Amino acid sequence: MTASLQFWFDFASTYSYLSAMRVERDAAKRGVRVEWQPFLLGPIFAEQGWNNSPFNIYPAKGAYMWRDMERLCKQHDLPLERPADFPQNSLKAARLALAIPDGKPRAEFTRAVYAAQFGQGRNISEEAVLRDCLSDAGVPETTLEEMENADIKTALFDQVSRAKALGIFGAPSFVVGEELYWGDDRLNMAIAHATQT
Amino acid sequence: MTASLQFWFDFASTYSYLSAMRVERDAAKRGVRVEWQPFLLGPIFAEQGWNNSPFNIYPAKGAYMWRDMERLCKQHDLPLERPADFPQNSLKAARLALAIPDGKPRAEFTRAVYAAQFGQGRNISEEAVLRDCLSDAGVPETTLEEMENADIKTALFDQVSRAKALGIFGAPSFVVGEELYWGDDRLNMAIAHATQT
Repeated sequence: MTASLQFWFDFASTYSYLSAMRVERDAAKRGVRVEWQPFLLGPIFAEQGWNNSPFNIYPAKGAYMWRDMERLCKQHDLPLERPADFPQNSLKAARLALAIPDGKPRAEFTRAVYAAQFGQGRNISEEAVLRDCLSDAGVPETTLEEMENADIKTALFDQVSRAKALGIFGAPSFVVGEELYWGDDRLNMAIAHATQT
Repeated sequence: MTASLQFWFDFASTYSYLSAMRVERDAAKRGVRVEWQPFLLGPIFAEQGWNNSPFNIYPAKGAYMWRDMERLCKQHDLPLERPADFPQNSLKAARLALAIPDGKPRAEFTRAVYAAQFGQGRNISEEAVLRDCLSDAGVPETTLEEMENADIKTALFDQVSRAKALGIFGAPSFVVGEELYWGDDRLNMAIAHATQT
């Protein structure tokens, strides 16, 4: 059996950008396979009484996050272009990711969406942007038509339920066996644990 | 001029325990001096609408935090004994820390308080516990009498005001020049930045 790690992400999450861009490379170095698990934080935040990103609700935390992202992107040699709107509506991107079977195409689409949003400041709720991301990932544009399919909508509801059941309350999160890791800062620890299972 | 780093901590903060126990040693290795800055998160959390620790308000986050602390304490070879009450009232400990001039005695008292609370599960709002901590740090017990002094109360109010002005919204936080770093995970980055200033 190959060691594996579940990478849980919401496309609107800034710190998930950092993880998305390196998780596969860093995990592969240790022989760990990545399962790409898109979900939505919105319903989970709503249960905590938040109808917006905590980075908007708590201004000091938000100001800090953007400065922290600048420093971390510089460290990881990633471009950072703050989108005009934050958080963006990640519903369509999440549905599309689920319409793409897990594996290389979903991984490439996911990276394309994060790069468009936080590397170029584009709005990922726009279908033109998502179309470019599909193209970048070599995924047929016809996948766009699947977004409204009942089974895809159900699959995303199920992802949110699974995330809650796993105790997930933020993104990125990593799950290895029984262990939950929250935040880009725990990626290395999660990979290390996966190599021991 | 010696490079320096401000370490801002609330005695009730779990993750501050991790930082308190190694900040001086890790900073000294890089030639960085530590300024010990006790403050209270309570008034800052209250402004965010929280009348309790976010780890109690949001149960999933709280459950995660304690598991995360177990893993991190193991990694850092620190004992962890979860106190019966959390968060503890850190007012007296903070006043005492301010009554002790910054430098070696304040550092040792601070470590003694964290070790008592999270290493042994003792209640740091109790004067008997604080007396032991003063003794461990080689600080005269008479310092206990200073807790009610007006200048010490004012000094603690001022610390909270300073923390707010610095954009601090959680603990531990580190300040190096104009840069704010939040969380034990940023300690290394803060020290590295201090060596460059």
